[in-house]
Amino acid sequence: MDAEIISVGTELLTGSILNTNSQYLAKELSNLGVNVHFITTVGDNPERLSTSFNQAYSCNDIILITGGLGPTEDDLTKEVVAENLGLELIENPKEKERIINWFKDRNFHLTKNNFKQALIPENATILENKSGTASGVYINKDGKHIFLLPGPPGEMKHVFNTSVVDIINELNNQEVITNYYNLTGIGESEVEDRIFDLIDNQTNPTLATYAKRGEVLLRVTANGKNAKQKLEEIDSKIKNKLENFIFSYTDQTLAKTVGKYLIDHHLTISTAESCTGGMIGSILTDIPGISSSYMLGLITYSNEAKIKELHVKPETLDKFGAVSEETCYEMCNNVRKILNTDIGVATTGIAGPDGGTKDKPVGLVYTGIATKDFVVIKKNLFQGTRENIRYRSANMVFQMIRNEFFKIY
Amino acid sequence: MDAEIISVGTELLTGSILNTNSQYLAKELSNLGVNVHFITTVGDNPERLSTSFNQAYSCNDIILITGGLGPTEDDLTKEVVAENLGLELIENPKEKERIINWFKDRNFHLTKNNFKQALIPENATILENKSGTASGVYINKDGKHIFLLPGPPGEMKHVFNTSVVDIINELNNQEVITNYYNLTGIGESEVEDRIFDLIDNQTNPTLATYAKRGEVLLRVTANGKNAKQKLEEIDSKIKNKLENFIFSYTDQTLAKTVGKYLIDHHLTISTAESCTGGMIGSILTDIPGISSSYMLGLITYSNEAKIKELHVKPETLDKFGAVSEETCYEMCNNVRKILNTDIGVATTGIAGPDGGTKDKPVGLVYTGIATKDFVVIKKNLFQGTRENIRYRSANMVFQMIRNEFFKIY
Repeated sequence: MDAEIISVGTELLTGSILNTNSQYLAKELSNLGVNVHFITTVGDNPERLSTSFNQAYSCNDIILITGGLGPTEDDLTKEVVAENLGLELIENPKEKERIINWFKDRNFHLTKNNFKQALIPENATILENKSGTASGVYINKDGKHIFLLPGPPGEMKHVFNTSVVDIINELNNQEVITNYYNLTGIGESEVEDRIFDLIDNQTNPTLATYAKRGEVLLRVTANGKNAKQKLEEIDSKIKNKLENFIFSYTDQTLAKTVGKYLIDHHLTISTAESCTGGMIGSILTDIPGISSSYMLGLITYSNEAKIKELHVKPETLDKFGAVSEETCYEMCNNVRKILNTDIGVATTGIAGPDGGTKDKPVGLVYTGIATKDFVVIKKNLFQGTRENIRYRSANMVFQMIRNEFFKIY
Repeated sequence: MDAEIISVGTELLTGSILNTNSQYLAKELSNLGVNVHFITTVGDNPERLSTSFNQAYSCNDIILITGGLGPTEDDLTKEVVAENLGLELIENPKEKERIINWFKDRNFHLTKNNFKQALIPENATILENKSGTASGVYINKDGKHIFLLPGPPGEMKHVFNTSVVDIINELNNQEVITNYYNLTGIGESEVEDRIFDLIDNQTNPTLATYAKRGEVLLRVTANGKNAKQKLEEIDSKIKNKLENFIFSYTDQTLAKTVGKYLIDHHLTISTAESCTGGMIGSILTDIPGISSSYMLGLITYSNEAKIKELHVKPETLDKFGAVSEETCYEMCNNVRKILNTDIGVATTGIAGPDGGTKDKPVGLVYTGIATKDFVVIKKNLFQGTRENIRYRSANMVFQMIRNEFFKIY
């Protein structure tokens, strides 16, 4: 089946936001065996959206449109599509009720234009959106399949995964099974290099890599009657080439995997963060249930805080500096002792853009992990922006916990 | 002038790479006063590229095409464009020499197909590319301006900035000015509701709203000779309707604005985070230069940490619970005193998905701010996912600092 993706939004045409939705959908559709032939971006302009829609409609089986489902005047996707297909827009009572409740629950002020979101083209299927006010819409007309999805990436992915995938699979009429391999400590291009022969010319199963920061997700999808057997055959080949880097098979991030491991094994942890400034704590506390493991975090950006709260020796700071193996050692070791947790971790480094010297350049970060039995300190030299250096530092701490406590979980 | 951007490459249609080129060009063209009406992505397929090119040619003044200028069989941009415009491709001796030298300088092996890159449409202008082998091409025909740019982002930007900008400025010959209004404490749809009459039917200046989490950006752009005067005229109307919500005119986030305010005014701050778990610290420390203001952060997820590190009274926790106005009061007040900073802030709440009760439901969050002169505690009831509740809590703290210390900065 052939598809076109249309992204609607003037903010995309002015470059105010990056179109990540299209890449996501293109990848997902490819994995579902759908050929994407065009990706079009068009503004909040009914004439031009009409032009794009009609052209897409004329030469594709599937059309996915993201954006323009909001409550404001310039959200026109449903209106334009309905008009071009000769469908009426009808206020859906259930949708109206849902919107009223949504605003009531949040104590938000409901305005008249919010009810625009309850208008649904006749005979269309509503695709539930649990993350926002704009439901998705599925129209099946004259053998064409049109999906209207909300623009915000989180909502778009949610609606796509909970509704669109099943419909496309049904159209495709085939079983699809996916295996995930979560990798860390290796870059995406090296992953591809190592399994080049498996990727090349593979159509079933298909192999796709997704680079996340500090992690790579390898997704292997097979379809048809022997899908399961096909996945088993390739599984041993993949493990043979990548085993050391696999930390999970669950499509979960490294941080979530580490967090789950700590919770399940009743391990407690404390954090002492300098350059990451709370990022490790923030990532940890995004994991539901972590309160049984995460006891204490100290963000000691200043030397004064390092001395007073973390009991780093002033001599250590004087002699070696805040960004040093010695300071990092005391940070992770001391923070662990405050509430006597099983693990203490620490970061101290120079995130930039200023503050670097010849001996201690921007990107130099010490990351440490301490238990009652051992302390490990790692010296890293990260590249990139301030944000990137900080993220890689946090990620390295999770890698170090993984390396010391488990391989695959 | 109207423009379309066409990105060529099958790897974009399979989602293998993210199309950052289009965003870059869209933003740059907008800033140059060019209206981008469509962004199209098409694969390495001559028929479909022809379709896209002809459609773009029919309704735009400027067409920018990136990608497909390489030496391989499926690099076909020059071929397709030349054929559609009835232009011959001619081997350019200087280009050929440049390519030979490029390979000689790098000790790379030159193959016959590399000379494909020396083929240039007749009467076209070569746009020098110092970063790669594919030169850009500028074709000016029948009042249309067609730019062919290399696909690798570094090379694309280089050719765009060194050649294309000057050509477009010369074509354009007009002034474009943009004003920004950063708003907080109001939703996007309410912003539009309030300035409905200004947005509706406005073509110069144009008004556009962009929703970020907890914030709205209003962008007002005018062009032409009276651009400045037009912006001044509408400015008072906007302020009249939205003044209370404006925190900046700089296109900066609320957190960055608050951070800059603290740094510029030599105000020091400490944080005590429970449900946000380091997110406030992490957002603060993403701001370069914040080390002079941000003294200490405590992530006190456990009651033990609240008592031992933050000196919250056990009686307070017993009597009112960790999620209470009283605990929040002690948290922000006590954390401020540890290093005697000007400001202390705190969060304590139930981020979910579990842990809620009838009296204290998921989403109940107390946010507090303390100085030596006053303490303000706010009771919030946030909706949404765990991540969303935590983000809104952090954002509320920045809103509270803004409300107490400045209105607009």
